[in-house]
Amino acid sequence: MSPAPRRPTSSDVAARAGVSRATVSMVLNDRVEGTVASATRDRVLAAAAELGYARSAIALSLRDRRTRTIGLITDRIATSPWAGPMTRAASQEAAAHGQMVIEVDLSLREASLADAMRLLAERQVDGLVYATMGRARIRLPASTFGLPLVLLDCEEYTAAGADASADDRDRTPVPAFVPADLEGARRATRHLIGLGHERIAMLSGGDRQPATLEREQGYRTAMTEAGLAPRLVPAGWQMDDGFRAASRLLAHGQAPTALFCIRDRVAAGALHAAALAGVDVPGRLSVVGFDDEDFFAAALTPPLTTIALPHEEMGRAAVRALLDLIEGGEERAAVPSAPVVVPCALVERATTGLVPA
Amino acid sequence: MSPAPRRPTSSDVAARAGVSRATVSMVLNDRVEGTVASATRDRVLAAAAELGYARSAIALSLRDRRTRTIGLITDRIATSPWAGPMTRAASQEAAAHGQMVIEVDLSLREASLADAMRLLAERQVDGLVYATMGRARIRLPASTFGLPLVLLDCEEYTAAGADASADDRDRTPVPAFVPADLEGARRATRHLIGLGHERIAMLSGGDRQPATLEREQGYRTAMTEAGLAPRLVPAGWQMDDGFRAASRLLAHGQAPTALFCIRDRVAAGALHAAALAGVDVPGRLSVVGFDDEDFFAAALTPPLTTIALPHEEMGRAAVRALLDLIEGGEERAAVPSAPVVVPCALVERATTGLVPA
Repeated sequence: MSPAPRRPTSSDVAARAGVSRATVSMVLNDRVEGTVASATRDRVLAAAAELGYARSAIALSLRDRRTRTIGLITDRIATSPWAGPMTRAASQEAAAHGQMVIEVDLSLREASLADAMRLLAERQVDGLVYATMGRARIRLPASTFGLPLVLLDCEEYTAAGADASADDRDRTPVPAFVPADLEGARRATRHLIGLGHERIAMLSGGDRQPATLEREQGYRTAMTEAGLAPRLVPAGWQMDDGFRAASRLLAHGQAPTALFCIRDRVAAGALHAAALAGVDVPGRLSVVGFDDEDFFAAALTPPLTTIALPHEEMGRAAVRALLDLIEGGEERAAVPSAPVVVPCALVERATTGLVPA
Repeated sequence: MSPAPRRPTSSDVAARAGVSRATVSMVLNDRVEGTVASATRDRVLAAAAELGYARSAIALSLRDRRTRTIGLITDRIATSPWAGPMTRAASQEAAAHGQMVIEVDLSLREASLADAMRLLAERQVDGLVYATMGRARIRLPASTFGLPLVLLDCEEYTAAGADASADDRDRTPVPAFVPADLEGARRATRHLIGLGHERIAMLSGGDRQPATLEREQGYRTAMTEAGLAPRLVPAGWQMDDGFRAASRLLAHGQAPTALFCIRDRVAAGALHAAALAGVDVPGRLSVVGFDDEDFFAAALTPPLTTIALPHEEMGRAAVRALLDLIEGGEERAAVPSAPVVVPCALVERATTGLVPA
């Protein structure tokens, strides 16, 4: 048994360059300032490059007690295909500020949120983002191990009124960024109403998740504002759920002329049901989705009109807020006292048209 | 401007518990051994918990020069929805061995592979996994900064024969885990042949990626072995690509009775084209995909027969191989000298049936 390949140390660099370890340290930490001859400096740098010697970012950053690393806690595993754009934007924003992101998947470790925070605090991150991959209300642990925290796609559950404990009332609110689910659904429905549709059904998730409730509420509001009767159909969140619900609706005489679907995946199933039933989209049936999922909404036939989740904006905003907290503390960052609701735009493609005559 | 919230230190714990910092250190590093009274120990642990004090995993691990952290380099951004299962399985396997995973997205940072390796080496990871999210041949940098490396879904490009440089011939091969694309495609095609189909077209990616070439080769091999004429149709990799290619094929008199699609997404487009053309699946047309994409293949209508990419097996195997290298060095780990080809299973669902009479 041979030992594991040993990582080069500064002593190895010193030996190869024929200088002391102190000299290596001075050169590699850019603390040269005329104390090390230029030729010596070049020799040290060459030796370091030849040996593949990497300085320890952790050791270096101990000077200002910052590691330039952000901890990202997610629940990716349960919902993987939709995690992409939000965490990607967060990582991009972090990279643009010279920060690295360390991710811990909460559902993966079957650990509590407090456990994940502790794990990352041990790894000396400068701050934490907790991102759920579907809108959620959460309870935060009592301590964040002294680390600033920002919430992404979730918000703190706070007991209201008489039920509120002293803790709930006193604690500084944690910044949170959530999508405008309600307003987005209202926008989708108003788009259909603007095209003359009156029999507009909503294929919903059929559950009590925050996104479901808000999107249903947005749909109901738009319908009621226009003097139209809402028709909520519990379907589910997957393609086959949308297929089954739309197939049933299209089989009846008083079929809707438009469907607002809780998600692009559900809309895809509805489009397939329409194709099998010989119902032309958008000639006889208009369909609107929600999400604007990457590589999906635009690749359907016809390309799907939908409401875009502002995943990129949310990811970037959360990281910027966290960096403000890390740099300046709570006062300077002007922590928002309520969740920041990020707008959702309508993306008009080819599945919506004028109501059939 | 107030300062950033300060992270509790061992001095804070010492002050709160009314003991020396040395005592705190002994208790928290489990080096008690009778030297610290049990009541004192309890007081220190209580103070640490109250303050949310997290020991530094980095500092602790300096004792054996291990950080129990694996660096994962990916190109997630370009291909995000398909990254999930492989990196997830890698993280799960790492967690099962008490290891944490730090991820760097290569495409995100517009950095070279060498830059990403250096960045992770600076963060003192114990080893590296480089995972491409689509099969690739890559060139490795000259140095891995002394870190063991395992490749996932990619393999080293090595010049063969007379073109091989001394470097190529001498270097110890880097362990690599790739899916059995060729054998999987052969299996899919043989499944259709076994159902009596003879006019079997392949909707392919139309490019020169390793996965495209191998899947085309597997299809061709199976057709030739059965004395049938291959019919390769360049389509693309997305749903609308599959839709367009299948629509054209189905519009002609000598339409195929079966389609082998390079990917589930392409198969989904083909299913939609068949629905719009009034072609029953599987009554008049059988369709097989490739990937067994999560939340996708099984949610199509009808649920898709497909070849499963062994993403989970690959992710786990790569991390196990890396941990062997970290623990035991190259000799003990018995590094495989050629990429390990992980089998792809046929998942029979409802889109394949006997050839129409």
